[in-house]
Amino acid sequence: MNPNTNRQWLLRRRPQGQVGRDDLELATSAVPAPANGEVLVRVKLLCMDPTIRNFMDPDPGYGAPVAVGGVIRGVVIGEIVESRDDTRAIGELVWGFGAWSDYVAGPAAQFIPLPTRFGHPLPAYTHVLGTIGLTAHYGLHDVARLRPGETVLVSGAAGAVGSLVGQMARIAGASRIVGIAGGSDKCRRATERYGYDLCIDYKGDTKLDAALAEALPDGIDVVFENVGGATLEASLNHLRKNARVALCGMIARYGATETVPGPRNLWNLVVNTARIEGFLVTDILGDPLRSDKALREIDSWIRDGRLHYDVDVRTGFENIPDIFNCLFTGAHTGRLVVQID
Amino acid sequence: MNPNTNRQWLLRRRPQGQVGRDDLELATSAVPAPANGEVLVRVKLLCMDPTIRNFMDPDPGYGAPVAVGGVIRGVVIGEIVESRDDTRAIGELVWGFGAWSDYVAGPAAQFIPLPTRFGHPLPAYTHVLGTIGLTAHYGLHDVARLRPGETVLVSGAAGAVGSLVGQMARIAGASRIVGIAGGSDKCRRATERYGYDLCIDYKGDTKLDAALAEALPDGIDVVFENVGGATLEASLNHLRKNARVALCGMIARYGATETVPGPRNLWNLVVNTARIEGFLVTDILGDPLRSDKALREIDSWIRDGRLHYDVDVRTGFENIPDIFNCLFTGAHTGRLVVQID
Repeated sequence: MNPNTNRQWLLRRRPQGQVGRDDLELATSAVPAPANGEVLVRVKLLCMDPTIRNFMDPDPGYGAPVAVGGVIRGVVIGEIVESRDDTRAIGELVWGFGAWSDYVAGPAAQFIPLPTRFGHPLPAYTHVLGTIGLTAHYGLHDVARLRPGETVLVSGAAGAVGSLVGQMARIAGASRIVGIAGGSDKCRRATERYGYDLCIDYKGDTKLDAALAEALPDGIDVVFENVGGATLEASLNHLRKNARVALCGMIARYGATETVPGPRNLWNLVVNTARIEGFLVTDILGDPLRSDKALREIDSWIRDGRLHYDVDVRTGFENIPDIFNCLFTGAHTGRLVVQID
Repeated sequence: MNPNTNRQWLLRRRPQGQVGRDDLELATSAVPAPANGEVLVRVKLLCMDPTIRNFMDPDPGYGAPVAVGGVIRGVVIGEIVESRDDTRAIGELVWGFGAWSDYVAGPAAQFIPLPTRFGHPLPAYTHVLGTIGLTAHYGLHDVARLRPGETVLVSGAAGAVGSLVGQMARIAGASRIVGIAGGSDKCRRATERYGYDLCIDYKGDTKLDAALAEALPDGIDVVFENVGGATLEASLNHLRKNARVALCGMIARYGATETVPGPRNLWNLVVNTARIEGFLVTDILGDPLRSDKALREIDSWIRDGRLHYDVDVRTGFENIPDIFNCLFTGAHTGRLVVQID
């Protein structure tokens, strides 16, 4: 790589369904110059988050869409290589909203120092000690308010968030933890590594509703929902009294070309005096005390050997679109990131 | 009426859609004899609740279905005319789960003394000082947690519950209270009598989504949902950050012969970190301190002239099925009850 050029992936046109190579364009520009109060960050790791697909649509639902011709946005980890802000030093490792590019310049406040005091390898901060770990912790404890002895169902159980939720539910004393994942490999990882008592393979010829009845015969206290669609509908048929559904993601709808039907059984919320509650990790990021408490707990669980995390580190700037699509085809293990060389 | 006979409406067969005369059968039996620990109640008022329709289905979702050949169940107000329980006296006015019949016998605990100390006419206890008033109070305050200055949307705004929710929201200091109701008469009542700033007529050629955007341009903090279906879906498009949807009833699904589609836009719960929470009035009935607090507040609001309630008292035991169907055709004003002569 020439240190004087900045590779970027641009949105050439809005994708229909899965992102195709022709929807994006690899371009090269000059390295941006930080303005007063800004820093220049050299990107080291790019996080592949499903929600990036939303920002390619004209109306993402939250946040602004990526403009056609604009650079794809995403969470990055990087190093400050130039600073025009008195409070930030060259060499500092930071994370923040950046872009699919070698360099990102922006206001100093856009880039948050990594909690490197915990002394874990860099990929950990894209995952268990980053927004993924905070999402799992906040969703399970603050939103779903899991109590010891309760039963838990997690969709996307082998995904980045789901892999942590199973283990955190185990640590919190859940009585039974059931996952839903696509394919036997993922299901095996969920039970062998991620704390699940049992994992239902929705890609098998499983009837989800019957499988849930068998897996959780006394019903579900907490649903941690990453998928939405038919998975959510099935889970609502098995709620216990006062159940909580923490609605984290709805990956079934990202990039879908047809509207995913809604659950026809919300009546179960009334019958069971239950709730569905949506949340965003930005709520806990905005509360430093709360997020620091979560990070300290997560650090101690990693050191205890009670919390495993898997980061799938890929390389090749030119391969980013294909790597991104692995999120939707399931061809990855754990948190998917691209290392920028 | 012969005081020695007990008229009853029985379920002859399970209705498809709206209840037809042939689905029910008017029968006469002997007046039941209370067993030890039981009381005999002469029914004075029968409450027409939409949920009774659910109990005619094979799987009501909660509670047991009415057996084919069995008497239709419902909430009644009556007078104890025979007591085989030491703690209960003849002449006591009570309410409880009873049946569409002249007399009901059952365990003393099944019949709760009316809070007649408040000194209101008997129909008030079927409504504002009964389960309807408690449903509105509990749903708005405990479930939706309305705060002063917030905006409120209520579906079924001219119905028994909705008519109280609008006024209670006004008393609680809501900044804007919008109702949805069917027909111009109901909408006029909602704004003239029930505290609404504006009421959207869904029976007009209104596009609900556009009407909501106009009525609540800054979005909705609290939805009090009595209808479900398309009404719920439309409201989810206009939620504000941290909005709460109190899911009280889903009258759109009662007696529907086809499955009502679910809201396809639950993603809005994530984007707005909002929640949908189902509830049942039985939760507050089980908490005497909480329900007494609500009843005392309601009594004071009636005396202040700040809370109006309308009870539509019909007569004619033989007309009960037709009167019941008025709940679904909207041919009634306020709380619908049948006075048993």
